[in-house]
Amino acid sequence: MNFQSFNPPRRILMGPGPSDISPEVLAALSRPVVGHLDPLFVSMMDEVKALLQYAFQTKNEFTIALSAPGSAGMEACFVNLVEAGDKVIVCRNGVFGDRMIQNVIRSGGEAIIVDSPWGRAVEVDKVEQALIANPDAKCLAFVHAETSTGAVSDAKVLCALAQQHDCLSIVDAVTSLGGIELKVDDWGIDAIYSGSQKCLSCVPGLSPLSFSEKAVNVIKNRKSTVQSWFLDQSLVMSYWSGAGKRSYHHTAPVNSLYGLHESLVQLQNEGIENRIARHKEQHEMLAKGLAKLGIEFIVPEEERLPQLNAIYIPEGVDDAKVRNYLLNKYNLEIGAGLGDLAGKAWRIGLMGYAARSENVALCLAALEDALNQ
Amino acid sequence: MNFQSFNPPRRILMGPGPSDISPEVLAALSRPVVGHLDPLFVSMMDEVKALLQYAFQTKNEFTIALSAPGSAGMEACFVNLVEAGDKVIVCRNGVFGDRMIQNVIRSGGEAIIVDSPWGRAVEVDKVEQALIANPDAKCLAFVHAETSTGAVSDAKVLCALAQQHDCLSIVDAVTSLGGIELKVDDWGIDAIYSGSQKCLSCVPGLSPLSFSEKAVNVIKNRKSTVQSWFLDQSLVMSYWSGAGKRSYHHTAPVNSLYGLHESLVQLQNEGIENRIARHKEQHEMLAKGLAKLGIEFIVPEEERLPQLNAIYIPEGVDDAKVRNYLLNKYNLEIGAGLGDLAGKAWRIGLMGYAARSENVALCLAALEDALNQ
Repeated sequence: MNFQSFNPPRRILMGPGPSDISPEVLAALSRPVVGHLDPLFVSMMDEVKALLQYAFQTKNEFTIALSAPGSAGMEACFVNLVEAGDKVIVCRNGVFGDRMIQNVIRSGGEAIIVDSPWGRAVEVDKVEQALIANPDAKCLAFVHAETSTGAVSDAKVLCALAQQHDCLSIVDAVTSLGGIELKVDDWGIDAIYSGSQKCLSCVPGLSPLSFSEKAVNVIKNRKSTVQSWFLDQSLVMSYWSGAGKRSYHHTAPVNSLYGLHESLVQLQNEGIENRIARHKEQHEMLAKGLAKLGIEFIVPEEERLPQLNAIYIPEGVDDAKVRNYLLNKYNLEIGAGLGDLAGKAWRIGLMGYAARSENVALCLAALEDALNQ
Repeated sequence: MNFQSFNPPRRILMGPGPSDISPEVLAALSRPVVGHLDPLFVSMMDEVKALLQYAFQTKNEFTIALSAPGSAGMEACFVNLVEAGDKVIVCRNGVFGDRMIQNVIRSGGEAIIVDSPWGRAVEVDKVEQALIANPDAKCLAFVHAETSTGAVSDAKVLCALAQQHDCLSIVDAVTSLGGIELKVDDWGIDAIYSGSQKCLSCVPGLSPLSFSEKAVNVIKNRKSTVQSWFLDQSLVMSYWSGAGKRSYHHTAPVNSLYGLHESLVQLQNEGIENRIARHKEQHEMLAKGLAKLGIEFIVPEEERLPQLNAIYIPEGVDDAKVRNYLLNKYNLEIGAGLGDLAGKAWRIGLMGYAARSENVALCLAALEDALNQ
């Protein structure tokens, strides 16, 4: 056994995440490690909290970055808010809605499933019917931006429905945060999780998380102990409770948090509205070019995510062959289809730092070249 | 709100972890991000697996780095191996044995607690009595190197006892891996977890994990579904199953894994035996200096961890004042006491890259200065 240092090439990441990362965020990762209880680090965590509040557009006191990927963020929401026997209405229109169902079941809850077609938004009428048919439901859970299909759902309307029916809303914002409009307080979202590696353009491994006061009270008044020690947010709350009052839970991923801090400073400097506009602009440039190549979108225009473009693989074209060609010739990564769309779709991400004209132009040129081969 | 980039000072980390990190590992963190399904990244994960097998001294096929901190690694062991009603004998001689008990209970198991004094090794006789009294126990769990007290327990003897009594052994090696002798296969350890930020000298946030074939079979033959989706190792197994056969579970923390890979290459290049000898040597230098200062160890010599030196705070000395003095004047971090030892002890870590003569000399000089103030 004699392994050498790993020196990855510079890829252009236009898949479903991780996304391209700015040089500044990459540089932040290799700053000197400090102790996770160092007063300077604790202050930085306070800043991360304030910056995440800005990103989520919330004043929620409980706004943190979970020390694990987005799928752990999803589990943190369900495992803390759902107790044995609780009914949860889950909207499924892709892979991640399905994963929510697994989480409800493993948390001991009962999942009431509302299916909408893959590649389409969650159907609001069906959700309303389910809420009426299940007046005892505790939560309504849905994915804001389905990473597996590229469809956006109407989070504002769905959360308003949840409130009307006295349900907590649980929202997957893994791909939406920083990419499209998302207003946690205005829309009355109760529990929301995201990932660091999508439109925030940080490295993968952290999950931004925010709970409303109502959600926090539900956790504080649970009858049973949360089944997970690591994800028990009543413990994590004290860990993120701010300078001076911080109690030990686990060792924070110090350097990844440097990266997240830097990526959030960049978001603050750009301004959320500008970032959202940039995603839309780059998406329009991409869509125009794809139309010229005769490539069709899976999602109808009004339900499309600008930051994740799911397109049909043209007839007779070899999926893997094209993706490998792009990767090997151009160092360009685009995403394969997932779940029901495996082998049928590509997913082109324009997330965060990746949403740039040079990337769009390269992607279109490279794709044209690949299809001509 | 107008936050700036965070520029931490260069600290010398001689607490209980995170430990000092080599410039090479820090540099590895900021290499370009690649996709988590990129063939080059999948090959790197295969190398991480082989390097972890070397670190653990095992041929276990199931040897991975969990995408979350050591406390999630602990939970992964219990939540996968323990089902409702299972009896688990847990040895408690510090904070982390106590955390194991919480994990057993939250996994639905019954914890049989064997208490040994804080600051001492787990008492083998008591464990044997518990094994005899509980012939139906499924697992024996203990902490190899108690980070809260600095005591090492006889993992070899305890695992042999577990085997004699047909129990699976679950071993916490968070602070031991890479610091003292640890032979997973020779000692017959069934499930073991560690942390990236201790004697491996990588950034915090990852948990090396290894399960014996016997443990893997127990997981495969569970009657119930694992309560955690994120920590369900039957799903994670396919994720780490090696090039070509890899199936999607979550997005790996790409850059943290670059760091772990680099730190394991450094372990390979130094050689485990040499690293263990280095820890011992530096510990002896530190112990000699502490004796001159009249400072006493908490743990008797034969049960002392070289990499984590728990010492009594001299009478009349202000705990926090001294630690702040060291941090502010010398950029030197030493650890506070934890649990029963809070306010009574300091913990001086000599872990991985931190176990160097220059650190020991600085620590002794700075401590002498602080005590004279």
